[in-house]
Amino acid sequence: MDKIKIGIVGYGNLGKSVEKNIKKEKDLELVAILTRRNIKEVKSRSHIEALKNILEWKDKIDVMILCGGSSSDLPNQAPEILQNFNTVDSFDTHARIPQYLDTLDKIAKQYKKTAIISAGWDPGIFSMQRLLAEAILPNGETNTFWGPGVSQGHSEAIRKIDGVIDGIQYTIPKEDALKMARERIKLLTTKGKHLRKCYVVAKDGENKTKIEDIIKNMPYYFSDYETEVEFIDKKEMRKHRKMPHGGYVIRKGRTGENKHLIEYKLKLESNPDFTASIMLAFARANYKLQQEKQYGAKTVFDIPPYMLSNKDRESLIKELM
Amino acid sequence: MDKIKIGIVGYGNLGKSVEKNIKKEKDLELVAILTRRNIKEVKSRSHIEALKNILEWKDKIDVMILCGGSSSDLPNQAPEILQNFNTVDSFDTHARIPQYLDTLDKIAKQYKKTAIISAGWDPGIFSMQRLLAEAILPNGETNTFWGPGVSQGHSEAIRKIDGVIDGIQYTIPKEDALKMARERIKLLTTKGKHLRKCYVVAKDGENKTKIEDIIKNMPYYFSDYETEVEFIDKKEMRKHRKMPHGGYVIRKGRTGENKHLIEYKLKLESNPDFTASIMLAFARANYKLQQEKQYGAKTVFDIPPYMLSNKDRESLIKELM
Repeated sequence: MDKIKIGIVGYGNLGKSVEKNIKKEKDLELVAILTRRNIKEVKSRSHIEALKNILEWKDKIDVMILCGGSSSDLPNQAPEILQNFNTVDSFDTHARIPQYLDTLDKIAKQYKKTAIISAGWDPGIFSMQRLLAEAILPNGETNTFWGPGVSQGHSEAIRKIDGVIDGIQYTIPKEDALKMARERIKLLTTKGKHLRKCYVVAKDGENKTKIEDIIKNMPYYFSDYETEVEFIDKKEMRKHRKMPHGGYVIRKGRTGENKHLIEYKLKLESNPDFTASIMLAFARANYKLQQEKQYGAKTVFDIPPYMLSNKDRESLIKELM
Repeated sequence: MDKIKIGIVGYGNLGKSVEKNIKKEKDLELVAILTRRNIKEVKSRSHIEALKNILEWKDKIDVMILCGGSSSDLPNQAPEILQNFNTVDSFDTHARIPQYLDTLDKIAKQYKKTAIISAGWDPGIFSMQRLLAEAILPNGETNTFWGPGVSQGHSEAIRKIDGVIDGIQYTIPKEDALKMARERIKLLTTKGKHLRKCYVVAKDGENKTKIEDIIKNMPYYFSDYETEVEFIDKKEMRKHRKMPHGGYVIRKGRTGENKHLIEYKLKLESNPDFTASIMLAFARANYKLQQEKQYGAKTVFDIPPYMLSNKDRESLIKELM
């Protein structure tokens, strides 16, 4: 069987995880990593190429995995790259998804390409679980919980405070809210569902009470949340270098006098590794869609599940049904 | 919007749950229930019709929900009914699914009909979760747990024992096995994963120790399992009339040095109600597939998730992505 030829655009945490994961997959082959970095400074055993030379790879790559950020990279890169490559991305600015999808759909159809957007875990797998749970139990409520996991934005906000050397913030689902979501048909607020736990390294002699107050009263980021601040030393902070994450999609619904619970849970040791894994499953689907000439921009809602697997449909039905 | 016209074949627990659930759905209309029972003795506000008159309903029903049993009803009924109706069933004899699918696929294509098979929770939603989890984390192991829930076959085996008035058996996931499935990448055996808990009402003066021994040593049903037997009185047995069920699909997998957990859990107050809910979601999908002239027999692996919802794709992307 021919391997699916994969390209990676962007060599940050996510791009590196995609590279690592591909090596374990027999049906996938990493052809090139395209980056804006100085390629002489990039350490990798894969073929590293300057992003500006991307067109030299036209027709040599079946699916391009876009690993740039959602705020500025993807909205600029994706429409351009899609003119010459089939793409998978994990665009995660929820509010802009409909417009992004529409833009890419027009380009994909014009250039006879296939794009799969927002194929991470949220948006992505969690979206699919929300849809599935709601479709099965239309009378009910779905609550999504995020964490325990690091929020980059909140961690940066802490690190900008005067007197702070280092800081990290974990978003943590509240146990009582999880319990309520499982037992009652009730839509909970993001604020009511999550606790913000901050680990902070302060400069020697700094007023810790003052720093804690600044954090807890920071508007938008912390002031409306239940926030805990713990001061630790630099050595202790080293334990927080991993990028764990996870979360829950919980739907409680009813049929007549009976109630039912559907709960989907992720517990991830590495957020980028897991996102990369999902993107590769959708790269397989992208390849199958191309074979069927199904061009256009698709979401995780549009793809028959069997297409995500490296096994053929017959084996899946026999083994997993 | 035109409602989707639904028919039900079979008026046991499952058929009754489908009838009940449809009443709550604005996009679905129950047209007729077809049964082999004496229709004069059937209590229902719906239109009840003798199964032998089914052809009178041709072209008046968009999707027929087949609620018969998998051992004898469905293999005989489905191939015949499919010649005139689009169908959804919850065929659950795992080993026979490939052959059943093949038989129905040929008929469906010949008569330009759409069949969706095995659309319950296992096989069905659990199958989809096994596929999805494996596709995302190809390097790992999936363990499915069933229960806590009643096993009809095992309950009947208990009731056949001399001296037993009534009996019920719950299959219960073992806590230590759940823990192991979450923490380690290891395929567990069905026997190692489940406990069998039996509630038994014995005739007055019967030797309970003897009955307990007979149960625990019953080959195939109990002898290889960790089995608990508790004797209760008739009054206590009334508490066991509900049909709760549930289970877990747990996949533990790795990407390089990192491990990840995907866990899908169902906790159901009524097994037939929930199965009926799933079948109605797939009835919606069946209707959409017909509109697209996608004829043939399909499984839950073949259907884009958006088709299961009563909302249009655009709203789903906006609200749930």
